[in-house]
Amino acid sequence: MTDHAKPYQPVPGIRLSTAAAGIRYQDRDDLVIMELPAGTHCAAVFTRNAFCAAPVLVAKRHLTVASPRYLLINSGNANAGTGEQGLADAYACCTSLAAQAGCRTDEVLPFSTGVIGENLAVDKLVAALPAAMEQLRETAWPDAAQAIMTTDTVPKLASRRFVAGGHTAVVSGMAKGAGMIRPDMATMLAFIATDLAVDRELLERCLREAVKVSFNAITVDGDTSTNDACVIAAGGTLGNDPLDDLDSPDYASFCTAVEEVCRELATAIVRDGEGATKLVTVRIEDAREPAEARRVADTIAHSPLVKTALFASDPNWGRILAAVGRADVDRLDIEAVRIWLDELRVVSRGGRDPDYTETEGRSVMEKKEITIRVALGRGEATADLLTCDLSYDYVRINAEYRT
Amino acid sequence: MTDHAKPYQPVPGIRLSTAAAGIRYQDRDDLVIMELPAGTHCAAVFTRNAFCAAPVLVAKRHLTVASPRYLLINSGNANAGTGEQGLADAYACCTSLAAQAGCRTDEVLPFSTGVIGENLAVDKLVAALPAAMEQLRETAWPDAAQAIMTTDTVPKLASRRFVAGGHTAVVSGMAKGAGMIRPDMATMLAFIATDLAVDRELLERCLREAVKVSFNAITVDGDTSTNDACVIAAGGTLGNDPLDDLDSPDYASFCTAVEEVCRELATAIVRDGEGATKLVTVRIEDAREPAEARRVADTIAHSPLVKTALFASDPNWGRILAAVGRADVDRLDIEAVRIWLDELRVVSRGGRDPDYTETEGRSVMEKKEITIRVALGRGEATADLLTCDLSYDYVRINAEYRT
Repeated sequence: MTDHAKPYQPVPGIRLSTAAAGIRYQDRDDLVIMELPAGTHCAAVFTRNAFCAAPVLVAKRHLTVASPRYLLINSGNANAGTGEQGLADAYACCTSLAAQAGCRTDEVLPFSTGVIGENLAVDKLVAALPAAMEQLRETAWPDAAQAIMTTDTVPKLASRRFVAGGHTAVVSGMAKGAGMIRPDMATMLAFIATDLAVDRELLERCLREAVKVSFNAITVDGDTSTNDACVIAAGGTLGNDPLDDLDSPDYASFCTAVEEVCRELATAIVRDGEGATKLVTVRIEDAREPAEARRVADTIAHSPLVKTALFASDPNWGRILAAVGRADVDRLDIEAVRIWLDELRVVSRGGRDPDYTETEGRSVMEKKEITIRVALGRGEATADLLTCDLSYDYVRINAEYRT
Repeated sequence: MTDHAKPYQPVPGIRLSTAAAGIRYQDRDDLVIMELPAGTHCAAVFTRNAFCAAPVLVAKRHLTVASPRYLLINSGNANAGTGEQGLADAYACCTSLAAQAGCRTDEVLPFSTGVIGENLAVDKLVAALPAAMEQLRETAWPDAAQAIMTTDTVPKLASRRFVAGGHTAVVSGMAKGAGMIRPDMATMLAFIATDLAVDRELLERCLREAVKVSFNAITVDGDTSTNDACVIAAGGTLGNDPLDDLDSPDYASFCTAVEEVCRELATAIVRDGEGATKLVTVRIEDAREPAEARRVADTIAHSPLVKTALFASDPNWGRILAAVGRADVDRLDIEAVRIWLDELRVVSRGGRDPDYTETEGRSVMEKKEITIRVALGRGEATADLLTCDLSYDYVRINAEYRT
């Protein structure tokens, strides 16, 4: 059982602060420090893009050798595509923070988000650190969620309370970006923390499972960024015996809370997608295997024609049909395919359902939240993918950015 | 050696006519008949979409049992997603034409392009046949190229003359649509004819090779239609001994001419792409294998972020880099990757080239025709893909169509 804490809940033992370093943006905070208690366990997942950014390389390396004490996050510059200089810059930032905090360099994890291919203004970032270190506090989550934004229009925070080991624990998270929608802004970062004590291996497993159904189940344009990262920190200040039993009800409660926080943040990311006017769930059923279901979902969710029809509220089911047909499903029996818009069946036996009417189709398509459901009729596997429409504003934002 | 015949050249022995059947459009021709001499050899390639349209199924079947005498083409309705009724309708059209022409039903190949999911107005189509049969002539290529258009803004014709067997032969073709750009209009049709006599197997091989580097090397939005078809007819009225030697210089000349006609039509399709303002060649070099090269080319050509940057003339090379990085290239050494815009090197050793300047980048990006060249530094394989940008007009056309 989890309790939906709105809009956010501080996490005892986790302190944050923000500062305006002027890296790219003026008159706003662009730097976040998150301080973790000694003994915190961290788990993280990173972008699979081969051109992963310098801070991603450094954070991965540090995670293998130490338990992090500080997360250092900047917006405005991704420090990606910056070669050796980028690595040196990321290390320099960690070293500077470590010196001020009295910890080791490898106990600092760096994260950057913003423009690709420009060198990071290390001097500006470092100059802002002392003031930021003075203001660490448990209540700075909203400020931090705001400071990590790039082209986001709203800050994204989520919290859940749950009971574990006889204590009421909290898990809170913040995220920026829009998954694969803003690769140029390089892109999605999510930071989640709990006061619960959790065994590191169990923490990793929990994060991996939660990310699978949340951040890895959203797409806007299929572009994977160079900087994506999602980190969870278990501070352990709650005083519980560290969770170490995979099958315990407490671990299940914790995982549910983390999954709910991740889903809420991931949904907020798609909802805030560039130019998005609709939130669309693509649900594939009766596939032969999960990869096949996901491939069909991806094909529909990435089809510019399906996405523009969604923008136009046009029940143009032929575009969905054509997307299913080109999704490389081995020996697809088109007679077995059925398609629904919400609960309205539009396609059966590979063509228009006899009871379908365009008027009903249009009334579903005019909603702000729509589910496209496709049953392939060849197995038991399913996939859910959250996406949005393709509007004039998507083109405007991505054509005008930088110029 | 081929001779570029502008704008088109009739093909002796091949007669065409057009008519206004009023299937969907008013006040314009929407029907084409192409008559082939007895003994013509035909080869064809069709869509790989599992939901292929009724006329595609019928044309494939007829090609296996007979040599076609007539191609019957309509625009305005794709006869796709129409189930059993769609098949019956396609057969009915063939039967009616066959009765008037005095040939067998299976000697007629049907082709349709237009809206998916609506039944074909067979009565209107059939009513227009007698007048069309009266007007068959060798000079109707321009009228035919116009009649098969849907949202195309220009008709697409190409011709080449070449010498074979001591005769000067001609190969001419017309196409409509924009490859994968207009799946809703279901979509690309191309009809090519020659007066040369060619062995059927060699004709098939020639078409397959030409399509590989032309129609299958273009993309706009990655959406494959339900109706794509490309047909070549070798009428044999030239009087040459039928070409049957794979290694003969005559066959090479013929293949070159066909390939050039296909490339010219394919290029015209991308140039006329919905909302397109730029013609972009994506060239991948030094890949380990052709499939890998093509995958990287596809990822770049389908990236909405690369496409919007092209529309904005923004030399945002980070987006190209990020697309390469997510293209699933096994153990990509990013240090070996180089990227050029035309002849301007923008990326070397995985980051911005030291000599690159934004001003130079912008001046390339402002051109109407641009080559994005990526060297992966891991092999010998290459791929070329022709694409266009993503503009406001793409969204407008695809959001407004049907509404």
